[in-house]
Order: sequence, then C-alpha cells, then structure tokens
Amino acid sequence: METPNEMLKQWMDAWLPRLEQALKEAVSQEQGFDKKLWQAMEYSLLAGGKRLRPAFLMLSGLALGAKEEELTPFAIALEMIHTYSLIHDDLPAMDNDDYRRGRLTNHKVFGEGMAVLAGDGLLNLAAETMADACMAEAPEQQPNALRAMQRILHAAGPSGMIAGQTADIEAEEKRLGAEGLAFIDHNKTGQLLCAPFVCGALLAGAEPSVCAALEQAGFRIGTAFQIQDDILDIEGDAALLGKATGSDALNHKETFVTVYGLEEAKEAAKRLSKEALVDLEVLPGPYGAMARALTASLITRKY
Amino acid sequence: METPNEMLKQWMDAWLPRLEQALKEAVSQEQGFDKKLWQAMEYSLLAGGKRLRPAFLMLSGLALGAKEEELTPFAIALEMIHTYSLIHDDLPAMDNDDYRRGRLTNHKVFGEGMAVLAGDGLLNLAAETMADACMAEAPEQQPNALRAMQRILHAAGPSGMIAGQTADIEAEEKRLGAEGLAFIDHNKTGQLLCAPFVCGALLAGAEPSVCAALEQAGFRIGTAFQIQDDILDIEGDAALLGKATGSDALNHKETFVTVYGLEEAKEAAKRLSKEALVDLEVLPGPYGAMARALTASLITRKY
Repeated sequence: METPNEMLKQWMDAWLPRLEQALKEAVSQEQGFDKKLWQAMEYSLLAGGKRLRPAFLMLSGLALGAKEEELTPFAIALEMIHTYSLIHDDLPAMDNDDYRRGRLTNHKVFGEGMAVLAGDGLLNLAAETMADACMAEAPEQQPNALRAMQRILHAAGPSGMIAGQTADIEAEEKRLGAEGLAFIDHNKTGQLLCAPFVCGALLAGAEPSVCAALEQAGFRIGTAFQIQDDILDIEGDAALLGKATGSDALNHKETFVTVYGLEEAKEAAKRLSKEALVDLEVLPGPYGAMARALTASLITRKY
Repeated sequence: METPNEMLKQWMDAWLPRLEQALKEAVSQEQGFDKKLWQAMEYSLLAGGKRLRPAFLMLSGLALGAKEEELTPFAIALEMIHTYSLIHDDLPAMDNDDYRRGRLTNHKVFGEGMAVLAGDGLLNLAAETMADACMAEAPEQQPNALRAMQRILHAAGPSGMIAGQTADIEAEEKRLGAEGLAFIDHNKTGQLLCAPFVCGALLAGAEPSVCAALEQAGFRIGTAFQIQDDILDIEGDAALLGKATGSDALNHKETFVTVYGLEEAKEAAKRLSKEALVDLEVLPGPYGAMARALTASLITRKY
C-alpha cells in the first residue's frame, strides 16, 4: 500500500499541471493598450511558487466531498491574492526586495507604477473569478460558493491579511512586542493559510464543527509556517530560497526568533504543526491523509 | 411644481448625509495594530468628493423600483473603488500628485507604503461589502445582487478601469493616438461611471433593453466627464478644483483637448451629454428626471 507521502506526490504530479493551466488561462486575455498590465500580472502569477494555498483548498474540499471543478476557481483566486500581496510587499515603499522565487521582483521588471497596477489587477481578478464562479454555480451550490467567496475576501482584507501587513510595516518603526508579533503572524500569514481549509469545507457544505476544527488547524499551520520562514531567514540557503537571507536582522525586525530565540522557535513550530495534524483528523479518507502529509512536510521544508 | 433641479437638490440634501454616515461606518472598525490602516482608508474615503457614482446608482435603481437598502452597499462599494483608484493614482510611481480635493494626498500624510495598503484595503473592502450584501439578501433578490457585484468588479478590473490606467501610464511614454485616447477615456473614467447606471437597473431586476440603454448612456457620460476634466485642467480654477491645473501639459500628456483642440472638445462633451440624456429616457418618474438633471449639470461643472 502507498504511504500518504507517495499518494500526495502522485496527486500533485497530476493536479499541478491542471492548476498551472487554469492560472495561465486566467491571465491570458486579448491584449490591446493594456498588454503590459497582463504581462506583469502573468509574470508574477506564473512564477512557480509552491501553490500551497490552492493545494490545501483542494485537499480539504475533496476530502469532504466537493468536486474539483467547484473548488478550482477559489483555488485560483487564493493564489492571485497571495501573488498580489507579494508584488505590493516587494515594492520599494514596502520591503524593497529585488528578488523573489529566484527572479527579479515585479517592479524591477515592469516599473513601480505597473507593479502597483498589476497587484491591483490580481486582487480585482480574484474577486471577479469568485463572483463569476458564484454566478455559474447550480442554485443549490450557490450559497456554499458565496460563503467561500465572503470568507476569502474577509481573510484577505483590512481586517485580515492587510491588517497584518500594516502591523508589519509599523514593526519596522517601533517595537510591537509579543502581542504585536502574534497579530502579524495570525493575520499576515495565518489568514491566507487558514482560508483554504475552511473554504474547501464550505464548498463541500461541511458541518460548522468541521469548519471550526479546520479554522484552528489553519491558523496553527499559518503560524508554524511563518516561524519556519523566520528560521529560514537565519539558517536557510539563499540559493534554495530564491531570495536573500538575513533581511530580518538587517531591518532590525522583530520575529518569533528574535523575541523567543532560535531553539524556542523550532520547538513552537513543531508543536503547532503537531497540534494542527490532530485538528486535521476531521478530513477523512486519502485526501485527508494527503492534507496531513503536506502539512507535516512544511516543518521540514528548506525553502 | 418643482423643477428636476430642485427635486435633485432636495433629494441630495436628504440622501447625502445617509450615504456619508454609511461610508463612515464602513471604515470605523475596532482598531488595534492596524489602526493606521483604517485611519488612512478613512482619510481618503471621507474626504468629500461629489459622490457622483453612488448618486447615479441610487437614482437609476430607485427610478426602476429598487429599494434604497438594496442599493446602498453597492453605492458604497463603488465609492470605495473610486477612492482606492485615486489613492494609487496619486502615488509617486504613478501621477505623483500632492493634493487631491484640496487636501494632501494619502501618501503625503501616511507614507507611500501605507497608501498602497490603504488602496488595497478599500478595493478589498468594496468586494467584501458586496459579498456581504449578496449573502444578506432575500433569496429572490440574490441573483440581482450577484449580477451587480459581478458587473462592478468587471468594470473596476484589469479588463476595465485598471486597463485604462495602464494605457494612461503608457501614454506618458509614447503616443497612443486617437484610438488609445478613446481606450483610456472608455476604461479609466467610463467604466466606473457606466457601472452605476447598469447596476442600479440590475438591482431593480430591469429588462436587458433598459440595461443596454443605460450602458450606452453611462459610457457617453463617462467620456463627456473625462473631456470636461481635460478642459478644466486648462481652463479650470485650481482653488475650486482642489488640485493643480496644467498637469497634462506639464506631463506632455495626450488628452482629448491636445488631440482635437479646445473647441472641438467642448462640442464633443456637449454632444455626448445630449445623447446620454436621450438614452436616460428609459428611467421613468421623478428619479429619472433627477438622473437627467444631474447628468446635465456635469457639462457645466467648474470642479
């Protein structure tokens, strides 16, 4: 019998090309005077990336009985939102990063103005994609689709991810302390890693108790993921990561590691990951096993 | 009997405070580490402005039988989207403007990074507001609400307003000619002035023929509005406008005026406005008369 890791690899190998194709089609428009905008959006959206958020949404939804075609538009929307947040985050006025995933950042290639618009465009296109999906659904599935859209938009918005980014900017100017750090981890990273689990369940019409367990899992995974990011910024290999390391120290930025120390950080990431695996028991069958295998792999990731 | 202009004034005096209150509530959140974000969003959203897009949506929808409470969330969303586009448009990497509506622009007060996030936040909040409204609607009104959301998002997105802004940036580097100019006017200004008319009708469940007439009216009004803007950039009073004039010439920017000349521009604006007034005959009753009165006033506006 195959192990969950083997099943995950097989499923990923089959599914990822379909996702990449769907992402590509979403940013391949007939181009006129707006050609450069679509090129800029495509450049960042199709830059590889782990596609972690789409994968978690698919695995959660499939485990609970949703169909792939019901899930895909929301998986795409999540990846668009994640990508736009990276484009804006890399801007000179924000983190001022030149490299991302081993390639020049969007504004380095297309200029700052176009990078702002490309980010705006991807956020807007994400909302359009979800609204179109809601319209196209059969009447009985429409309420589930609407709930998933609402949830993703809320997770991404000024009470969610953008609130986290605000606190992150503030953190460069003043000490936010342990509470501020928790706020950043919860919102900047956690919201968009939690939403896939919950939305997969919403699209499958799952019970509130299942959604609640997945919500808890998602935020734990989000925090563990962020702590691992902070660790990699110190211990990681820049070539593998595709971006410079040591930037947190350079920016005198508070992270879980600077506040609690490297050992405590590693412990916390492990503990959160373990707790999340227990929460994820609500996902049945082979897709549930794959969701847990993917979660477990995050804690040992090198990039 | 009252004239349409008098009716419009009375209705505006009663409705505007309700709209302003609703806008205020939408950006008044409990504030923690994201306080500055909400302040920055509020600063630009509550900076006055003509509230033209919300007014057109209300008048169109009310004329066709929709209820004010069905229309308000979409009116708010439109104004949020309009405001975010101004915040990003004013950024140093875009138009680099210091003043807007007689006040310092968002990035001048809150810094560039926060202005990027405040714009992102308002766009996201607009989508959230519409999704929440769709969820809250009675089942029979839900399809209309979904259609309106889809339409607004499409008008605002990379095939709509953002495409127009892209061409506008490109126009600073190279000649786009009459066709490029028409593309900019249609998309950058037209889309978000057309959407209110059409969405008012969609929310009222109006016939496709009515929506088509309003679509035509909206784009004509949008182009006339933009031409009037270009004229005011030459002939306008900076104090009344609340921003500097002459910036198009300074940026060597093609506009309807530079391409066709001032007299031809004035003629075109008048002609488009007149044609739009005929299209708008599909809006019956006093609200229809008020929509036409508001449209006619745009061509004589000084700011």
